[in-house]
Amino acid sequence: MKPTLGVCYYPEHWPEEDWASDAERMVAAGLKWVRIGEFAWSRLEPKPGQYDFDWLARAIDVLGNAGLSVILGTPTATPPRWMLEKLPDMLGVDDAARVRKFGSRRHYCFSHLGYRAECAKMAAELGKRYGKNAHVLAWQIDNEYACHDTTLSYSDAALKGFREWLQQKYQSIDALNRAWGNVFWSMEYDNFDQVELPNLTVTEPNPSHVIDFKRYSSAQVVAFNKVQADVLRGFTDRPLIHNYMGRELSFDHFELGEDLDIASWDSYPIGFLSDRLEASDTDKSLYLRQGDPDNQAFHHDLYRAVGRGRWWVMEQQPGPVNWAPWNPAPLPGMARLWAWEAFAHGAETVCYFRWRQAPFAQELHHAGLLRPDSEDAPALSEARQVADEIEEFGALQINQAPVALIFDYSADWIIGTQPQGADFSYFRLVLDSYRALRRAGLTIDIVPPSASLDGYQLVCAPGVAEMSSELKQRLSDHDGIILVGPRAASKTPNGAIPVPLPPDLPNLDATVTRVESLPPKSQVPLTGGGAFVHWFEHVDTREVNLIVTQDDMPALVSNGRLMYLCGWPDHEAYDRVVETACAAAGIATTKMPTGLRIRETAQHRFVFNYAPTAISWNGKPIQPGDLVWESI
Amino acid sequence: MKPTLGVCYYPEHWPEEDWASDAERMVAAGLKWVRIGEFAWSRLEPKPGQYDFDWLARAIDVLGNAGLSVILGTPTATPPRWMLEKLPDMLGVDDAARVRKFGSRRHYCFSHLGYRAECAKMAAELGKRYGKNAHVLAWQIDNEYACHDTTLSYSDAALKGFREWLQQKYQSIDALNRAWGNVFWSMEYDNFDQVELPNLTVTEPNPSHVIDFKRYSSAQVVAFNKVQADVLRGFTDRPLIHNYMGRELSFDHFELGEDLDIASWDSYPIGFLSDRLEASDTDKSLYLRQGDPDNQAFHHDLYRAVGRGRWWVMEQQPGPVNWAPWNPAPLPGMARLWAWEAFAHGAETVCYFRWRQAPFAQELHHAGLLRPDSEDAPALSEARQVADEIEEFGALQINQAPVALIFDYSADWIIGTQPQGADFSYFRLVLDSYRALRRAGLTIDIVPPSASLDGYQLVCAPGVAEMSSELKQRLSDHDGIILVGPRAASKTPNGAIPVPLPPDLPNLDATVTRVESLPPKSQVPLTGGGAFVHWFEHVDTREVNLIVTQDDMPALVSNGRLMYLCGWPDHEAYDRVVETACAAAGIATTKMPTGLRIRETAQHRFVFNYAPTAISWNGKPIQPGDLVWESI
Amino acid sequence: MKPTLGVCYYPEHWPEEDWASDAERMVAAGLKWVRIGEFAWSRLEPKPGQYDFDWLARAIDVLGNAGLSVILGTPTATPPRWMLEKLPDMLGVDDAARVRKFGSRRHYCFSHLGYRAECAKMAAELGKRYGKNAHVLAWQIDNEYACHDTTLSYSDAALKGFREWLQQKYQSIDALNRAWGNVFWSMEYDNFDQVELPNLTVTEPNPSHVIDFKRYSSAQVVAFNKVQADVLRGFTDRPLIHNYMGRELSFDHFELGEDLDIASWDSYPIGFLSDRLEASDTDKSLYLRQGDPDNQAFHHDLYRAVGRGRWWVMEQQPGPVNWAPWNPAPLPGMARLWAWEAFAHGAETVCYFRWRQAPFAQELHHAGLLRPDSEDAPALSEARQVADEIEEFGALQINQAPVALIFDYSADWIIGTQPQGADFSYFRLVLDSYRALRRAGLTIDIVPPSASLDGYQLVCAPGVAEMSSELKQRLSDHDGIILVGPRAASKTPNGAIPVPLPPDLPNLDATVTRVESLPPKSQVPLTGGGAFVHWFEHVDTREVNLIVTQDDMPALVSNGRLMYLCGWPDHEAYDRVVETACAAAGIATTKMPTGLRIRETAQHRFVFNYAPTAISWNGKPIQPGDLVWESI
Repeated sequence: MKPTLGVCYYPEHWPEEDWASDAERMVAAGLKWVRIGEFAWSRLEPKPGQYDFDWLARAIDVLGNAGLSVILGTPTATPPRWMLEKLPDMLGVDDAARVRKFGSRRHYCFSHLGYRAECAKMAAELGKRYGKNAHVLAWQIDNEYACHDTTLSYSDAALKGFREWLQQKYQSIDALNRAWGNVFWSMEYDNFDQVELPNLTVTEPNPSHVIDFKRYSSAQVVAFNKVQADVLRGFTDRPLIHNYMGRELSFDHFELGEDLDIASWDSYPIGFLSDRLEASDTDKSLYLRQGDPDNQAFHHDLYRAVGRGRWWVMEQQPGPVNWAPWNPAPLPGMARLWAWEAFAHGAETVCYFRWRQAPFAQELHHAGLLRPDSEDAPALSEARQVADEIEEFGALQINQAPVALIFDYSADWIIGTQPQGADFSYFRLVLDSYRALRRAGLTIDIVPPSASLDGYQLVCAPGVAEMSSELKQRLSDHDGIILVGPRAASKTPNGAIPVPLPPDLPNLDATVTRVESLPPKSQVPLTGGGAFVHWFEHVDTREVNLIVTQDDMPALVSNGRLMYLCGWPDHEAYDRVVETACAAAGIATTKMPTGLRIRETAQHRFVFNYAPTAISWNGKPIQPGDLVWESI
Repeated sequence: MKPTLGVCYYPEHWPEEDWASDAERMVAAGLKWVRIGEFAWSRLEPKPGQYDFDWLARAIDVLGNAGLSVILGTPTATPPRWMLEKLPDMLGVDDAARVRKFGSRRHYCFSHLGYRAECAKMAAELGKRYGKNAHVLAWQIDNEYACHDTTLSYSDAALKGFREWLQQKYQSIDALNRAWGNVFWSMEYDNFDQVELPNLTVTEPNPSHVIDFKRYSSAQVVAFNKVQADVLRGFTDRPLIHNYMGRELSFDHFELGEDLDIASWDSYPIGFLSDRLEASDTDKSLYLRQGDPDNQAFHHDLYRAVGRGRWWVMEQQPGPVNWAPWNPAPLPGMARLWAWEAFAHGAETVCYFRWRQAPFAQELHHAGLLRPDSEDAPALSEARQVADEIEEFGALQINQAPVALIFDYSADWIIGTQPQGADFSYFRLVLDSYRALRRAGLTIDIVPPSASLDGYQLVCAPGVAEMSSELKQRLSDHDGIILVGPRAASKTPNGAIPVPLPPDLPNLDATVTRVESLPPKSQVPLTGGGAFVHWFEHVDTREVNLIVTQDDMPALVSNGRLMYLCGWPDHEAYDRVVETACAAAGIATTKMPTGLRIRETAQHRFVFNYAPTAISWNGKPIQPGDLVWESI
Repeated sequence: MKPTLGVCYYPEHWPEEDWASDAERMVAAGLKWVRIGEFAWSRLEPKPGQYDFDWLARAIDVLGNAGLSVILGTPTATPPRWMLEKLPDMLGVDDAARVRKFGSRRHYCFSHLGYRAECAKMAAELGKRYGKNAHVLAWQIDNEYACHDTTLSYSDAALKGFREWLQQKYQSIDALNRAWGNVFWSMEYDNFDQVELPNLTVTEPNPSHVIDFKRYSSAQVVAFNKVQADVLRGFTDRPLIHNYMGRELSFDHFELGEDLDIASWDSYPIGFLSDRLEASDTDKSLYLRQGDPDNQAFHHDLYRAVGRGRWWVMEQQPGPVNWAPWNPAPLPGMARLWAWEAFAHGAETVCYFRWRQAPFAQELHHAGLLRPDSEDAPALSEARQVADEIEEFGALQINQAPVALIFDYSADWIIGTQPQGADFSYFRLVLDSYRALRRAGLTIDIVPPSASLDGYQLVCAPGVAEMSSELKQRLSDHDGIILVGPRAASKTPNGAIPVPLPPDLPNLDATVTRVESLPPKSQVPLTGGGAFVHWFEHVDTREVNLIVTQDDMPALVSNGRLMYLCGWPDHEAYDRVVETACAAAGIATTKMPTGLRIRETAQHRFVFNYAPTAISWNGKPIQPGDLVWESI
């Protein structure tokens, strides 16, 4: 498929007389798609039940007639102020029991059924008008679920919903008490109405209580989305999309993704590096204007899985953003490089966010393709270059990768509830693992725990804390190399420690008898180089130890095909682990120079330079912010 | 005018039989002024409407008869406990919606009209008794407005007041919606009663909303003060004073100052360095017992402007204080040096805080001129020395300085609302600029944006984010050198980005096309030395670039008289910028040794040694904590 | 007395059929004691007034019949959920006014009289059943008072109780106003009902207000405990015990201890080092798997005093815990070393916490003597070794030490209320002092301020901020060396500064005229080596200065027997101070190698190696985690 470009646009922000020239310039820049409408509820329904769709119809006409395809967003992330007068208890509540007020966005609690009904009504109004519109070729439902920590809400609506959910799940309060281990500290309940939300307890609440609340809350996001998806299906056969956030694990994207047709995510490489990725000071400085060299690729691979192959970048950073602690500008070329990296990972479409920088409101420092004065911003010409290059390049085809990385939201809920080490993050562990695979020049698929593993020469499953018997069996039976651990199968779905002790994998004689978390400056050095950091497990085994600690304790255990990693490797150690596993799997690796990254499609090898200096590849320099592709 | 010394005194804290000897010792120490009364409400009105002014009358008599002039404070910073029974809703509310309880001070909301009326009544009671008293030669209204973050209050009174203020300002809700850009994220209101205070929103509230709330809150402080000023004017023609806090920008001091006769501030050099100034670790250590060498001077110059030439230090640190994270003792000599620095900047009076250290209550670790056991504390003899020196020295005369620095409270409200870089502070930027000017040996006037610039050879306006057309024109027309930027004229009064893009100054072909904030360890190096830190602007210009970055981007742009600074210079770069601007302005500079600072009056050059070691000046050593003056 | 070992056990967590084999294995491991019951309220009284003691009776039988002695805990730290329906206002409230909800433990306010009555009833039910039971040989009341910051509660119950307590203490509101110095800032009250709890004030509340609230709150813990002690005394003559927390100073353990027979504490050496001890990065890394070499000893000595000679370790860390930020595993041998260190300090019993690691609920990562799968965890064999060694060793006898260290809870309340330096902690100061004494190889007694000092060659009293005249006289009259300061006698019981100024000790001509706190990187260097850090006092004296600062100010003042320390010594300086004081006292010292520590009993010298490497002692290496004892 030949990828396309697009842009996010807010006709309601600009004088109607500018729409046509905006559309014309979009087309001239090589853009095919334009996303509109997702924050416009106050303009579509200015008063309860009083609709104004005329302007939207005209905007769609202007854009569509210019040759653009429209992605129409449902505006449910921004209920208008009057909604609060109808539904005063619809607001979310934070974990300190404070109502989260109107005045920005996402001011709703996912559990509130009244608000879901309002959203269904709005989706229907949109669906019936534009479901078959010739220009509206895709739909976005809501916007960035979970953003601003909105998945967990401690509202009355959530409390009521949670109690019902528990009742449904456990049927009897005794079953709940047993499942949670409430005998510990006399936490036993007599009935479901005694269960509160797990905030503001004297010390940490029961982890099973917390994990169930996370599961409940994830289910509410899925249910909230499904209401609109179901409504829209009645009016349209265009693809339904949501634009997910990166490093957002508070709900199960795989599960929600099943109700949609295409996954998309909002990619802000520089904002992420500044705000929400762990990286060394050196790397934070080295990649200041490029973003982490693996974070985008990671999420591309993740959302390809969430979309079951169909995925987009719905918002692509075009310049400095406004929301990170610091907001430097991208190196020249990055707006192009990021788009191509997305395509190399199979993106159908990359939309830049946003067309023209808004000079007002919360995001006024957020760059667009145009400056606030409508002049070209630097990224516009890079977008144009990408569009031209696509024409030249033609279609890309994505093959199954040789390596699969299992990603599991539930693992984060369980580990995040009781990390046991203050800086232990499931996501960080997985990203460290992914980084090591990329440093070895590998092309990777990210897959959910339920995915078929057929055809993968190497399957990595770091930190998958909960594993069903079925998954354990599947891993043990797989005919490629399986690399699990640390913390593999270390918990039951309720967060308890299973007995027999973990990992309890068929065919692997290995038992984790003790776990240790390590403060930042401590480590467990390995024989042969590298060390475990953050985490170390004492493993009892009669299998082969491919790597051992300097105290001769198992570090990487193997039964030949199934490998158990007994800690969190540092950079050097992870490279050794990947080397070892790939050697066993018969996968060739390439030691990538710092900042250079590879992604292979069916016919091409793409090479991206994330470093701030030129780097030589096959004897030729790749400039900073530049990429090359070669046939394979 | 020959300056004078004074002291803050609390007769109500001490046995009446000690008042006379205290007064005698004050006079013996060379003090002329004594401030009393500003926290004594519970003693002046022990029950509602039941007054007891006898003790105050006797105290004034004792002090006055000893030869002291009294500054009488209105006690409105400390309403007594019974006030809450009359006005239970008068307390302030913090941004987490928690009522700020009785039990310390400043427990009132500026918006509460009932409390304003109580203050007016107390001011009248005081005014009618002492307005023409022969010993009461000045008045202080309230105490340290805004201290303990009290300007912004999220109370019902503030909400009501804010809505009315908005209604008055915008007249129609549509006008407000347009002005704030509420179409963004469907934040549009149907009526003014829907507008809430901008706290506890899901993510950041609309910046225009916040900025208006800051403007409203500043106006309440001004209005609160004016009530008492108006009352007192009816009873007295003595000067009215308020004692402002340093680095306190939450209300417009210039505006409030217009209702008073003299500005004063509370100068705690060591407490400030420990608690609320950005400085390098080296400087924090070097100036541990002296305070930042520029902070006092900066505020002296600021409050000279606020007082339209008439200003005091109402509270001068005499020894260790109690409120900073760490509280070291001043070097010997500092209590003298600080007073002289104030005089060199035109202070009419410096009052030490306080006479005798109170052995009880919140400030019991706060040093005074006397120890708690009434023995002399070290600062007393330094005060005596200053008093003697004043006699010898005679009158000082202040001339207009060659350099003006524009200071604008509104700039802080706007930049503080959306700093765009986590450590970007308007005050810090201005102080950095002031420090650079002082390192060049310059004498400086600080002026409000509305001030006439006539006669200034150099005018600096760093970070003045909002500039009226009138100001822009005035700067462009000025016949001295004007140095503006970064962030000059970058916002409208509502915090939006103006179009045409900033700075849009007449006669200067320069457009800021993109801004970047930089994390602490990153910088943009300049050709020729130094770098931009924190902030860098990409400027499109056809003017001359006096300084460029190592990437050859404009760093200091000039049309010959009007210069635009494109970032936040580090120490070395700021020295270069000041050098360049002064050279153009024809101002001679002196590269000051570390810790040495100059201030010139009409006839003298004062040289202060803030370093902990002796420093040579004109071939003679100045000891630490010492100063010299020389005729010019 | 020959010491014994024990373990904490939760029969209610395990199938009844496992109890007998558990008991058998405990006995086989050499354990004598088993603690049960302290969190089992929901199983003992599943519904209000409906008791189920059968299972407990059977558990006691099984354990007792196996040869174990039972410590029976009252379960009052974990009221069941139904209790909240009876007593909805019994929950604690945090200082931000948020109710601390059910769902973990310690969810009660000490001031709530209704809950006290419920606890009395439960204690009576237990007492009447097991008070004379042949197997129940000791009782534990509640569990870890104050844990999770529960001493201070801002509830209505606390407010009511506090007002009554104040009324009782001061009798008239005028007396309270005078005692607190409420004239300052017009904080005067008209009646006791106007006094609020000292939270959420605009700035810091009156320190006397806070100190009284701390005294009140401490008294509630004592009163809460006494209710149950009194009830149990009616049913049993077995010893009553509470298991205190380390570094927990929010209530007066000495006072509470008077109502009990034996003191015990919960010793988690590695958790403490990670979570709540100040130590250099080097030491945190060096002792990562051993714990601070002095913290256990300190608390052992403290609780020997609290128990008036009789004390236990009720919970001994056996492996990694779950609650510290990071939780590494102990070095092999530490579970043995820690037990022996306790015995060397006179512990009658050391109980490991817990028998089998619970695979569920909050502490599922907390190691036990058994793994969750019932296999032996590493500490079990170490316990067995200790049991064997005890048999061999026989009885230990504790003599009075040559050195006494005075420890005073009230000092912490006063200093903690107004530390005057952000990192000044009374506990930290005392521990630093204790560490210096231990580095000199000394054996130490910790004593309350009221203790007789007879026979002590050296008495240290760092930071005892409040000293009665009686104590001052006793110190001055003592015929050994007395080392007081810094901050000695610096405050009245209400936290005011006394006049005459401190320390005002009979026979010592020394006056603290000024105090300074110092930020982390600043210090006051001493002539001859070392420096004061954190704190320095300017002392006026005509006594001999044994040590002076490099500015020739007094650092260690002495009248021959009474010494005043004028600051907080760093490591090197504290060693000099201890050397100097011991020389004067005629006490021989031993400069201990890093990580090696001594404790002498009547007949033996124990030497413990806390270092991670072997250390030579008397020519023979002691391995890491090992100890030796030698006759003296």
